[in-house]
Amino acid sequence: MGPVRLALLAVVALAAAGEAVYIPYNTSAGVVAGKLNVHVVPHTHDDVGWLKTVDQYYVGSNNSIQGACVQNVLDSLIPALLKDENRKFIYVEQAFFQRWWRNQNDMIKDTVKGLISSGRLELINGGMCMHDEATVHYIDMIDQTTLGHKFIKEEFGQIPRIGWQIDPFGHSAVQAYLLGAEVGFDAFYFFRIDYQDRDTRKETKELEVVWRGSKSFGSSADIFAGIFPKNYEPPPGDFYFEVDDDSPVVQDDPLLFDYNVEERVNDFVAAALAQANITRTNHIMFTMGTDFKYQYAESWFRNMDKLIHYVNKDGRINALYSTPSIYTDAKYAANEQWPLKTNDFFPYADNPNAYWTGYFTSRPALKRYVRMMSGYYLAARQLEFFKGKSKSGPTTDYLGDALALAQHHDAVTGTEKQHVANDYAKRLSIGYTRAQELVSTSLACLTELGSKSHCSSPTTKFSQCLLLNITYCPPSQTDFSKGKSLVVLVYNSLGWKREDVLRVPVFSDSIVVHDSEGREVESQLLPIASASLNIRDKHVKAYLGTSPGAKPKFWLAFPVSVPPLGFNTYFVSSMKKSASVSSKSTIYSSQGSENSNLQVGQGNLKLQYNAAGAFSLYSDSRTLASGAYIFRPNGTVPIKTDSQVPLTVLRGPIVDEVHQQINSWIYQITRVYKGKDYVETEFIVGPVPTDDGNGKEVAAEIVSNMATNKTFYTDSSGRDFIKRIRDYRSEWKIEVHQPIAGNYYPVNLGIYVEDGNKELSVLVDRSIGGSSIKDGQIELMLHRRLLHDDGRGVAEALNETVCLDNQCEGLIIEGKYYLKIDPQGEGSRWRRTFGQEIYSPLLLAFSEQDGGNWANSHIPKFSAMDPTYSLPDSVALLTLQELEDGSVLLRFAHLYEAGEHKDLSALASVDLKRVFPNKKIGKIIETSLSANQERAAMEKKRLKWKVQGPPADGKVVRGGPMDPSKLVIELGPMEIRTFIVNFERSISGKQLL
Amino acid sequence: MGPVRLALLAVVALAAAGEAVYIPYNTSAGVVAGKLNVHVVPHTHDDVGWLKTVDQYYVGSNNSIQGACVQNVLDSLIPALLKDENRKFIYVEQAFFQRWWRNQNDMIKDTVKGLISSGRLELINGGMCMHDEATVHYIDMIDQTTLGHKFIKEEFGQIPRIGWQIDPFGHSAVQAYLLGAEVGFDAFYFFRIDYQDRDTRKETKELEVVWRGSKSFGSSADIFAGIFPKNYEPPPGDFYFEVDDDSPVVQDDPLLFDYNVEERVNDFVAAALAQANITRTNHIMFTMGTDFKYQYAESWFRNMDKLIHYVNKDGRINALYSTPSIYTDAKYAANEQWPLKTNDFFPYADNPNAYWTGYFTSRPALKRYVRMMSGYYLAARQLEFFKGKSKSGPTTDYLGDALALAQHHDAVTGTEKQHVANDYAKRLSIGYTRAQELVSTSLACLTELGSKSHCSSPTTKFSQCLLLNITYCPPSQTDFSKGKSLVVLVYNSLGWKREDVLRVPVFSDSIVVHDSEGREVESQLLPIASASLNIRDKHVKAYLGTSPGAKPKFWLAFPVSVPPLGFNTYFVSSMKKSASVSSKSTIYSSQGSENSNLQVGQGNLKLQYNAAGAFSLYSDSRTLASGAYIFRPNGTVPIKTDSQVPLTVLRGPIVDEVHQQINSWIYQITRVYKGKDYVETEFIVGPVPTDDGNGKEVAAEIVSNMATNKTFYTDSSGRDFIKRIRDYRSEWKIEVHQPIAGNYYPVNLGIYVEDGNKELSVLVDRSIGGSSIKDGQIELMLHRRLLHDDGRGVAEALNETVCLDNQCEGLIIEGKYYLKIDPQGEGSRWRRTFGQEIYSPLLLAFSEQDGGNWANSHIPKFSAMDPTYSLPDSVALLTLQELEDGSVLLRFAHLYEAGEHKDLSALASVDLKRVFPNKKIGKIIETSLSANQERAAMEKKRLKWKVQGPPADGKVVRGGPMDPSKLVIELGPMEIRTFIVNFERSISGKQLL
Repeated sequence: MGPVRLALLAVVALAAAGEAVYIPYNTSAGVVAGKLNVHVVPHTHDDVGWLKTVDQYYVGSNNSIQGACVQNVLDSLIPALLKDENRKFIYVEQAFFQRWWRNQNDMIKDTVKGLISSGRLELINGGMCMHDEATVHYIDMIDQTTLGHKFIKEEFGQIPRIGWQIDPFGHSAVQAYLLGAEVGFDAFYFFRIDYQDRDTRKETKELEVVWRGSKSFGSSADIFAGIFPKNYEPPPGDFYFEVDDDSPVVQDDPLLFDYNVEERVNDFVAAALAQANITRTNHIMFTMGTDFKYQYAESWFRNMDKLIHYVNKDGRINALYSTPSIYTDAKYAANEQWPLKTNDFFPYADNPNAYWTGYFTSRPALKRYVRMMSGYYLAARQLEFFKGKSKSGPTTDYLGDALALAQHHDAVTGTEKQHVANDYAKRLSIGYTRAQELVSTSLACLTELGSKSHCSSPTTKFSQCLLLNITYCPPSQTDFSKGKSLVVLVYNSLGWKREDVLRVPVFSDSIVVHDSEGREVESQLLPIASASLNIRDKHVKAYLGTSPGAKPKFWLAFPVSVPPLGFNTYFVSSMKKSASVSSKSTIYSSQGSENSNLQVGQGNLKLQYNAAGAFSLYSDSRTLASGAYIFRPNGTVPIKTDSQVPLTVLRGPIVDEVHQQINSWIYQITRVYKGKDYVETEFIVGPVPTDDGNGKEVAAEIVSNMATNKTFYTDSSGRDFIKRIRDYRSEWKIEVHQPIAGNYYPVNLGIYVEDGNKELSVLVDRSIGGSSIKDGQIELMLHRRLLHDDGRGVAEALNETVCLDNQCEGLIIEGKYYLKIDPQGEGSRWRRTFGQEIYSPLLLAFSEQDGGNWANSHIPKFSAMDPTYSLPDSVALLTLQELEDGSVLLRFAHLYEAGEHKDLSALASVDLKRVFPNKKIGKIIETSLSANQERAAMEKKRLKWKVQGPPADGKVVRGGPMDPSKLVIELGPMEIRTFIVNFERSISGKQLL
Repeated sequence: MGPVRLALLAVVALAAAGEAVYIPYNTSAGVVAGKLNVHVVPHTHDDVGWLKTVDQYYVGSNNSIQGACVQNVLDSLIPALLKDENRKFIYVEQAFFQRWWRNQNDMIKDTVKGLISSGRLELINGGMCMHDEATVHYIDMIDQTTLGHKFIKEEFGQIPRIGWQIDPFGHSAVQAYLLGAEVGFDAFYFFRIDYQDRDTRKETKELEVVWRGSKSFGSSADIFAGIFPKNYEPPPGDFYFEVDDDSPVVQDDPLLFDYNVEERVNDFVAAALAQANITRTNHIMFTMGTDFKYQYAESWFRNMDKLIHYVNKDGRINALYSTPSIYTDAKYAANEQWPLKTNDFFPYADNPNAYWTGYFTSRPALKRYVRMMSGYYLAARQLEFFKGKSKSGPTTDYLGDALALAQHHDAVTGTEKQHVANDYAKRLSIGYTRAQELVSTSLACLTELGSKSHCSSPTTKFSQCLLLNITYCPPSQTDFSKGKSLVVLVYNSLGWKREDVLRVPVFSDSIVVHDSEGREVESQLLPIASASLNIRDKHVKAYLGTSPGAKPKFWLAFPVSVPPLGFNTYFVSSMKKSASVSSKSTIYSSQGSENSNLQVGQGNLKLQYNAAGAFSLYSDSRTLASGAYIFRPNGTVPIKTDSQVPLTVLRGPIVDEVHQQINSWIYQITRVYKGKDYVETEFIVGPVPTDDGNGKEVAAEIVSNMATNKTFYTDSSGRDFIKRIRDYRSEWKIEVHQPIAGNYYPVNLGIYVEDGNKELSVLVDRSIGGSSIKDGQIELMLHRRLLHDDGRGVAEALNETVCLDNQCEGLIIEGKYYLKIDPQGEGSRWRRTFGQEIYSPLLLAFSEQDGGNWANSHIPKFSAMDPTYSLPDSVALLTLQELEDGSVLLRFAHLYEAGEHKDLSALASVDLKRVFPNKKIGKIIETSLSANQERAAMEKKRLKWKVQGPPADGKVVRGGPMDPSKLVIELGPMEIRTFIVNFERSISGKQLL
């Protein structure tokens, strides 16, 4: 009424206006015995690419997609930490941290070094990214972690103690024992486990466990694993304090309205008691942060200061600034016995219809690109070492960095936006281009006579053919008619001698192949399938922007033999009249109905065809759609094949091939090589049609009549095999809502079934989702093209296309898988040996010779090792890499689990003197897996956790300490041993080969 | 296709990975002659309440409404400024700055003092808020500016140089000359002017002008006025750098993708050249900021550092960190002659159908509350001075602070959200409650015999009746039957003796009034209209939460006479039989048709009724709706009156009243007092019905047959009158799209028309919108109830309600306006004198006496001034206020413009010795208007700007310097002079009265 609107006033004791109300907050609390201790852990989770690229996230560009700028986080963090010495922060993703670090001046660097050395800023996890655990190969995990840890060690003298995999979509056993325990971590924190598992664990207070991820290592690789109750964000009750967040800030200024200290203290205490109720010991962790938060760090710390101050004044509980390290130490000090967890945490579901098993396959082309580059990077580093790492010239560093980023849990997973996927691919491409240059130079140096030392500009030019899979290899377009021949140098990065069959596209139908000793080599010409030629033109144009030139007519296939860690050279030329001119394949075509008696195969293996290649097609639905993360089939749709699948058989001395056009967009080639007892299947899938308005997910089925009793085995991150039982989880009771998606597991190396009599194994060329949905059956999801987003943040349908002249079509996926049947107990040998060959394919470098002059100036065959030596069948050389300081990183892996193979699971040994016959090892130190500390010190330091129940270890076999005079490295089953080696140098400064 | 997605790479020179890329930015540029200088002015615009309350904005709570936290701005600013000594910032709103300041520790305070003294942080404008200029009374402008400037002077020794009214919705002449020039500002920057005016000015490069706002002061109060070309935000071209803003950040790290330095430099240069093209001299200003930005200041400075660095490296233009002061000095140094601007910038339209003239009336209850409190604050400070300012007891400080906030351009304007309007009212209520206590105590001290010194707990208890307008005054419910009588102490804060008629609600019908000398005073009883009683119960409950008790029956009206700056006392008691018992009014009721011959009025004025009170009703439309800001009538709807407006006439010896129930929700009382020659109209409007789905805006119309030739006059901020011509602007050509809304102007004091023969003046009791839409007519918009938002940010319909027991009804507005007809040339005397009386109504304090004992212990009548002295008719005492240090702020105002009145526009003088007859002035210094510097120094320092065209000044009359021995203050027309006075103290420390 009229002027007077007297608000009813709560009678508040207001200080006199103008009075100062500076409040010094007491944030100095440490752990207090006898009280519930709330470890307030300020953190940010910064995806190394997701909705934006890593660089966009770093500089804060492209904010219309997502407001996120890591530079802000780190810039604002420093003054915030300086403001109160009790404040703490952890930083995780080194890709960001390194970007920031190199932008800083010395003053800030000194300040940050002080903060880090005093523990106020702790670098944990410490890899370049927070890698995925389902679709990442363990070698990539090791490499990207090593890269991050190296920087932390060199720059700050620090060794990360904590695994912090808070976001990946499920967790692998290899992560726990290998990238956890073997890296020296004392604990490992995460949150994404199946919702049913979580619910049970909350009831039984088993969110915190000791995880024994390795059957081979038993308790020696135990690690404390903390699963967050809900997510990695602040506890329920509105404790988000980012600029613009709408949680109630702690308002403690008595001169202002809305003073709310009591309410906020009560909220905090309530959240703490709720969490304490599902947690053992009187320590709980509040993860104060989430994705890309702390862009203005002070805004969080200001409120946390107040909460700690007033909560402790309140006195019911004790709140303290903490880190996961401090929390871990407090848990350890509680001297509790913890529940035991074995195996892994796959698959992950966040609700009954949301199994995150789609991303096991999402973006299969990127996944293959990453895997190819991974193997290439391993080989390239060897060659970089042989040549000597260059300060100025091309190096493998960019490729290493690009690969590290690509392991991020929104990179190789396929769960990023398309433009971000392009960014990862671009980085790999740049990295590959540089590494390729290095590789070509190194091979030229190695092969040129007398050019070993100081070889930087050899005259021999090699080129390589990354696009060989789409029949594109310009060097092979050599016109042999003019007396030239194609030089094919074949490098083997494995420690074993290797026999394989190469395939090179050629134009001529009269081809002869010679080996390095001038002997003719039997070869075979196979007409190139039109399915392959059709995609060649388009994709060369789309990816390289150039026209691919004339179409080759044949694949030339010929066997090669390459020494360990070395190369051999082959020569392809034209010769009209020769006994050993390349054999043309015989061709047989039939309609599907006639296939039943078809038999192919040159050697021990005969393939009897009695069915068309089987594919499953999972159809998407609009309401609960599959997406980049989630596989949620609306039902299986049979592949609409022409009732008669036409079938073409090519036969010849080297390989038999069966070609099948399954339907208009699926082509399959099955190969059996002479002298090999496995089957190679090449598939070309796509463009997946979506004109019916539905997305589709394409799986290959391998069907047998084996009685496999719901059981199958898949690898953990490409290493250990874990037993899977359909519709069952070994450690908790599952209620099955998604009988297909809920039984999918990641496959990096392979998948197999067994029936007590034989084993059916399938090995893959990239990360893929797989299962055994029916007894005797194995399925592999090869491709996914989807039209809807699945609501987990990426906000884009996974609908990959390739565009040319503004016309876009669904992406075509080409790939291979390999199949073998072994007697029960024998499958592991092929899985392990051939698995390693798939990972490390022969590296081909092409050159040209005019006439037969190559041998005059080139060494045609080479092994870096003692010519009479090769590594044991059970051992692979994982890393041979020269570091910036000239020392060498060396890593060997035993490939078998304890008990996996009757012979090969035994202790193995590597004789370094024979591996490096021409070099003298000056100093050699065994380190942790990530090479950032001495192994012995690490083992001494690592916390040993108590486990509930009886001790259950069998004998763990590990290699003994290496005697520096003998230089023999022993490796027990699954053991990976890492060394830093200093070779003595020659007078010239060049390392001796 | 398969693994390979080679992105096509732009060939970029990438530095080697790992290389440091710390770039020291050169931001040291100053002004460069001969180049276009871009003054980069980092700023934030922080509304002192709008969508959130001032405290919510400060602490960052209620972020779901708007993500805004001023604490972040200031906290983050300090490290950002420290990072580079060239970085600069301005801060404007002292309400926020003071909140922040008192939260800081000494270390930060010292740092900030350093930043301020070095000019890196400059406090400009400097009031508590950025006050509105349409709905704010000039006394409130002065008070709130003084409050802010005082703090800046005391704490930092600084004197703001720049007016920075960048957001208010139109600009007043008083702001330019009084709150600009007279405060000592060298320039005044803003942007909201009519879009047509702006367009013209851009073409003629007249966005920067010299504004001569005062006709009386002429060029002596010129100020440089800079109108921004578009708004107060960064220039076009995406230069917003708040955390999460999506402008492209400057990406200059060569190791990362998307390097964009060239593009961003080009964008910056293009924006500069475009602005230079409409600006005189080679200096332009980029206002780098907007509402509540710089929550993480580094995010802006990081990008501005880079822009300055690379733009200057580019060399086409010169960019520099600057402030409006530096910019102003550069403009001044250019020695240009500037176009002249007179009058003001009202009304403001931002497009053809968007005249911001609704807010002149929006929230009329709040506007009245502010005006009441403003007058009360003036009086209370006098009484605080008389008593001596208390360190511990209640003070006027809170009210001063609350009033200061209420002047904000989203406060009294009515353009804030409802909960924020409630917050302002709450603050006023708290402030009033405290001031009321002080006032009661001070009056008791003054009136109690022998208690003048050290009077802190007088025995006499006074109470006051803020809700008298809704007939609620508990002290007047005294039961006179028991021999008690009501003591009414009447305080007059004006410097003149004053005669007025009081009205007090009473229960008895036999009342007698005595004056302080025991004489009976003639009085009159008027039955209380049921319209008044009906709203009494409801609103007392709604606002006070209590039941108002029994309903009084009569208004007791009686005349009082009060000395200047003093009080008189009246006694109301019951007396059955007395000659001078209060006269009951005679009552006459008629229907509308009979009204034509009705005549009322006791004195010189006779009011002849020949029409029902006229009201216009503007109806809202849904498509282009009126809102809190904008008045956009869809058409005029006649008020649906009952064809016969019933009319009741009350007649008596003191006042005649005509009551009219215009319709069910408009009630009007017209009063003519004996011996007064003006008409008082009280209106009760509301609840405005909206059940037809339309909002409505209610205007009162005063219609005459005067030939006013489209011309009328409205005041500028309650002070100067400015000539308005319908559908016309004196300095630019207007195209009329909104013939009603586009002719509305703010009315704070009054509006008048004249026809050469007589003047028709209307004075108002609050800020209101008014116009003369037809010749001879005046209209006042009394109330607005709207159902739609008008899209200018507040995002709420202006639909005020009052709720009781969960029932809400539209707000009822009660108020008064006053009307007088004078011979041509004579109207100003009433407008000025009575206008001052409306602003400063008599202050009533009620007590009780039992029997006739008051006079034994109380002084009944008092004046602080020499009993034979009063201020000249042309002079008002604007401020008499004791400051914390015991000195006294004294401000006198001449009330007439040059030439406004033939006699009263003359030079006037005030004899301070007679104003303070019992005090000795020790030291007296004349200061600037805001009392933060000596007047003489200010005048010497202020920049004198050159104006285009011939000098046009007549003689400006200003008072001469004051002779400290004579202590006589001269005041020329419109002059306001401000002094800091130190009185000599008595031994006791108490000031002498």
